[in-house]
Amino acid sequence: MIIQLEKNISRQAKINILDLLAEKQLKTKEVATQVSIYLVSIGMINFDIREIGNMDGVKDIHKVDDNYKLVSSKWKVKPTKVVLDKDVYVGSNGFSIMAGPCSVENENQVHQMVDFLKENDIKIMRGGVFKPRSSPYSFRGVGIEGLKMFYGICNAHGIKIITEVMEPEQIDLMYDYIDIFQVGARNSQNFNLLDALGKVDKPVMIKRGLSGTIDELLYSAEYVFSGGNEKIILCERGIRTYEKAYRNTFDINAVPVLKEKSHLPVIIDPSHGTGARHLIEPVALAGIMAGADGAIVEIHKQPEKAMSDGQQSLDFYEAKILFERMRKTYSFNKRLSAN
Amino acid sequence: MIIQLEKNISRQAKINILDLLAEKQLKTKEVATQVSIYLVSIGMINFDIREIGNMDGVKDIHKVDDNYKLVSSKWKVKPTKVVLDKDVYVGSNGFSIMAGPCSVENENQVHQMVDFLKENDIKIMRGGVFKPRSSPYSFRGVGIEGLKMFYGICNAHGIKIITEVMEPEQIDLMYDYIDIFQVGARNSQNFNLLDALGKVDKPVMIKRGLSGTIDELLYSAEYVFSGGNEKIILCERGIRTYEKAYRNTFDINAVPVLKEKSHLPVIIDPSHGTGARHLIEPVALAGIMAGADGAIVEIHKQPEKAMSDGQQSLDFYEAKILFERMRKTYSFNKRLSAN
Amino acid sequence: MIIQLEKNISRQAKINILDLLAEKQLKTKEVATQVSIYLVSIGMINFDIREIGNMDGVKDIHKVDDNYKLVSSKWKVKPTKVVLDKDVYVGSNGFSIMAGPCSVENENQVHQMVDFLKENDIKIMRGGVFKPRSSPYSFRGVGIEGLKMFYGICNAHGIKIITEVMEPEQIDLMYDYIDIFQVGARNSQNFNLLDALGKVDKPVMIKRGLSGTIDELLYSAEYVFSGGNEKIILCERGIRTYEKAYRNTFDINAVPVLKEKSHLPVIIDPSHGTGARHLIEPVALAGIMAGADGAIVEIHKQPEKAMSDGQQSLDFYEAKILFERMRKTYSFNKRLSAN
Amino acid sequence: MIIQLEKNISRQAKINILDLLAEKQLKTKEVATQVSIYLVSIGMINFDIREIGNMDGVKDIHKVDDNYKLVSSKWKVKPTKVVLDKDVYVGSNGFSIMAGPCSVENENQVHQMVDFLKENDIKIMRGGVFKPRSSPYSFRGVGIEGLKMFYGICNAHGIKIITEVMEPEQIDLMYDYIDIFQVGARNSQNFNLLDALGKVDKPVMIKRGLSGTIDELLYSAEYVFSGGNEKIILCERGIRTYEKAYRNTFDINAVPVLKEKSHLPVIIDPSHGTGARHLIEPVALAGIMAGADGAIVEIHKQPEKAMSDGQQSLDFYEAKILFERMRKTYSFNKRLSAN
Repeated sequence: MIIQLEKNISRQAKINILDLLAEKQLKTKEVATQVSIYLVSIGMINFDIREIGNMDGVKDIHKVDDNYKLVSSKWKVKPTKVVLDKDVYVGSNGFSIMAGPCSVENENQVHQMVDFLKENDIKIMRGGVFKPRSSPYSFRGVGIEGLKMFYGICNAHGIKIITEVMEPEQIDLMYDYIDIFQVGARNSQNFNLLDALGKVDKPVMIKRGLSGTIDELLYSAEYVFSGGNEKIILCERGIRTYEKAYRNTFDINAVPVLKEKSHLPVIIDPSHGTGARHLIEPVALAGIMAGADGAIVEIHKQPEKAMSDGQQSLDFYEAKILFERMRKTYSFNKRLSAN
Repeated sequence: MIIQLEKNISRQAKINILDLLAEKQLKTKEVATQVSIYLVSIGMINFDIREIGNMDGVKDIHKVDDNYKLVSSKWKVKPTKVVLDKDVYVGSNGFSIMAGPCSVENENQVHQMVDFLKENDIKIMRGGVFKPRSSPYSFRGVGIEGLKMFYGICNAHGIKIITEVMEPEQIDLMYDYIDIFQVGARNSQNFNLLDALGKVDKPVMIKRGLSGTIDELLYSAEYVFSGGNEKIILCERGIRTYEKAYRNTFDINAVPVLKEKSHLPVIIDPSHGTGARHLIEPVALAGIMAGADGAIVEIHKQPEKAMSDGQQSLDFYEAKILFERMRKTYSFNKRLSAN
Repeated sequence: MIIQLEKNISRQAKINILDLLAEKQLKTKEVATQVSIYLVSIGMINFDIREIGNMDGVKDIHKVDDNYKLVSSKWKVKPTKVVLDKDVYVGSNGFSIMAGPCSVENENQVHQMVDFLKENDIKIMRGGVFKPRSSPYSFRGVGIEGLKMFYGICNAHGIKIITEVMEPEQIDLMYDYIDIFQVGARNSQNFNLLDALGKVDKPVMIKRGLSGTIDELLYSAEYVFSGGNEKIILCERGIRTYEKAYRNTFDINAVPVLKEKSHLPVIIDPSHGTGARHLIEPVALAGIMAGADGAIVEIHKQPEKAMSDGQQSLDFYEAKILFERMRKTYSFNKRLSAN
Repeated sequence: MIIQLEKNISRQAKINILDLLAEKQLKTKEVATQVSIYLVSIGMINFDIREIGNMDGVKDIHKVDDNYKLVSSKWKVKPTKVVLDKDVYVGSNGFSIMAGPCSVENENQVHQMVDFLKENDIKIMRGGVFKPRSSPYSFRGVGIEGLKMFYGICNAHGIKIITEVMEPEQIDLMYDYIDIFQVGARNSQNFNLLDALGKVDKPVMIKRGLSGTIDELLYSAEYVFSGGNEKIILCERGIRTYEKAYRNTFDINAVPVLKEKSHLPVIIDPSHGTGARHLIEPVALAGIMAGADGAIVEIHKQPEKAMSDGQQSLDFYEAKILFERMRKTYSFNKRLSAN
């Protein structure tokens, strides 16, 4: 059960509610986000919840029998809109494209990418600066100085950025140079990182784990929300299966299921979801018909020279076509389901 | 390497070719289908294949370095069209819908379904009469008499049928009452059944195994083709993964990959691919954008009363909407990729 | 609920029981095996089963709330002993070794193998004559004539054989030349084959499917048992997972779980379970400590020249050591758990 | 290629080696551990490595064509012994048992456990104080104060402890109160944590990821080693598969494969590997026959009252039997393979 409190609730009113919850044998956690205050109560609800709903200081109340609570669509039916700027947001309505290289490499690359994105009306650039790599001997990214450069150029041109954060300590260092914190697949259940991102007031995009379940992804989102940050984006990026014909198996079922279970926006990553250039378009368009709110795509001016993930990066020519087709498909799907 | 022979090749010309292949240390299998004669040669090709291409009686020749040969798009680039009747076909162009109940139950059900399909211009009805069931105590279908009834009604109304065959011995019994033989997921590597279906001149639809790989599905098709039957349809129906949120995980990547690797038509089964009514539409439309040539869908007048698979069957109202949206999506995708 | 009937039950006594079961709204299937007659009743049991237990003609009765019934240890607690000959059996007590080549190749090979097995006191030889192969162009076995030769030599020397049957039609052809019918992993849910093997009075060993669940394996066994054949052996042979370091992932958990859930003997196949020669011994010994009743192992005089599966076949030197160590480990484990 | 340098190598000698490596187009990383100095060179080795082997200051040199290097058995054939104290070590010879509760709960619990461990000659106690939990609303451990209590009691009684560390920042806080840092399955590819543990001089046990590959586990170990810490223990704890009959599928193949590919000790976790009390013993004994160097087991005085993982915790009576049987099995296996 979730109880949303009035912002200006009196101390005594809150105590009254907490006392009643304790009396009902419920374990209650108070969650204060940048938006509101909630009481998340866990336990047997065998009474009429209007008893609490009618108390002073209660704004809203719902039973939520999912194990995740605040991210559940049983709590909030209306889709969440994660706002980055007055014109830039993810979710709710409109299709958000995030595009850019796997790894940020140098200034020239960022400039070229920014120009290309602006030409195509893309408002969010992706680019890794801390790269999680299986082997310690692989290229591990340009680091914090690279991030400053990356952010500086993008910010000067009105482009928002998304990049991966790998540990709680990096959050403060990165904070001034980032628009969306990305939690990578390998950190999808790094609970300390999720806790720490709950304390931040910038959006967080959480990728599903390598073999993460739908429930685990929603629980990870619940960590961030219950930590205090409501600006959460979910990302389906393919799962690990027995099939060796592709790097990962994009889980198309996950898209409508996440949209149904949660009010959070769902982004698809067809680059990692397939691991192969020529599969990105069909899987991206598929994901849109399945209900995605946006896509994050790896592109590179010269994929064959990319410092990482070249095999799954589109060149500018391919990317331009993809952007157009994704937008047309999104509009088509909106019209189709409106009839 | 595949060598297609002229239909009227002389005995001597064929001997000359076979002698040369033996001399080149290649292991050769002669494949005679209803359409043509092929020599499939396996081994190191370290010579100019035009040496053979120029011989008498050779119609076409290609190196095919895939392990599957005749079903490979390296052998035949043009998509295969599996023809059922002058107006009814699968693949090549146009979107084929196969719809009907999981299990054929009785005459009344078939009549109602036929009426519904005709209203919606659906030309192929699905319906199981031999049901593979995990438990021997579950309902196992109405059997051969039910098939005769099913076929009789459909045939009288110009509707083609597809139903599952479970063992070689059933083929002859079923032959006069069937339009497409379906090989189920659990029989996807029943090689004796595949061999036997190679001897038949009616189309065969092969479902991917429960955890079958792309390569295994293509090999299974190669069994049918090399047995003599070129009328093959592939079907992606979801795979078994660790995820418990749905019955199977529909493998959207498989659609473009199968279309790329093979010239055979690819049908999607969003009913088994998801196992849940409300997921069928988003996943079906996704599959179309990924390149599917058709869909097979479980529908039932009263899903809650179905003898099997009710939870993943659409009612007539839902089905009607789905058919329209699938057709519109197919047309949209054709236009999109034509630009 | 399972009701075992007296062999000499009167017609009227049986009718009385069936009438009562029908009155109780239970769906009942009569199962007559070579050993006994059972009534398997499915439905809500909300009455005292002694009411039936006390009726004339009832030998035994138990509630079995598993979905599989006759193979459940809730029906029969005592381990089943599958008898091949007065000294040769599988299960119950003692460790059964089945060894031999992946494929039977020729007379000489069989003679050498028989000599080797006799030297090592191995009483059951494995060897494929119908080989299920992913590709239609691979070697597919020496066939029925090879089986006659294989059986003839073994039988003359007192060695029993196990070989794979691939379709119902083969059963009669093979019947006179076989001691144990093996159902391969790809046919683990070939229900028509399982049904047909229920009509046979020779033992059947069922391999777990490529990605078969524990429950599916037990259901497959239930098919054979409810078809009339109680002589069933289960085989764990590794499952398909994401891990590419080995051909299959041997599922060690399956061994104690199958032993706990069922009264049937459990054989391990460390050859397919690992796919690599040097892993066979550690995994075989592990399987014994986990409770296996026997092992089936691929061996070849010259593995590097085997017509199939050479990479996972032991040579005679390695096999001899393995046999000794398996037997010692089995004895050790018996002593250990006796204390 | 790995080059181990003499401890007292001169500055000039090192420069000479590095110059030659650069000339050979090799990318070299210098690794200084608490034990030695290594140069790890990556690239094409198309020359006689004795050319470098003979240079001043070189102690040892080997080609290592695995992607992981310093943890490979191609670098170091002899098994690594991770020493905790003069009598307490993991690996090399002898079987190490780590046992204790999933979560440390209170002083009384730790005292009882210490007494029990001492009675059974167990030298390492496990116990979580920071608990990674899927849901933010679950019990998350007693934290750093609990760790101090836990360590204090154990240390006073000569018991070493192992507990999970979840982020780099915790390392310093925990350092004085810990004997072995455990990296949990969900953090198995938390590269920042692995990097940070490379700077520490206490042993690190790395659990395989939920669906981690063998290679990924070895790469994770390579992170710690190349960071400077050679005291690494690997842990197989079951993987995520489609099978729902148990919490995880213990991967028995992993044990001999890890022992073969790496010189590091391998510990098995049959508690998480099965998720069920009654499966722990058979799987533990199996793991020992497969070559494990030790086991980590969850035990609890009253499993039904445990704050977490009660369903997979043994009580003291069961644990005592398990310890004895594990030790006997280890001795048996040593004798068996010595013959």
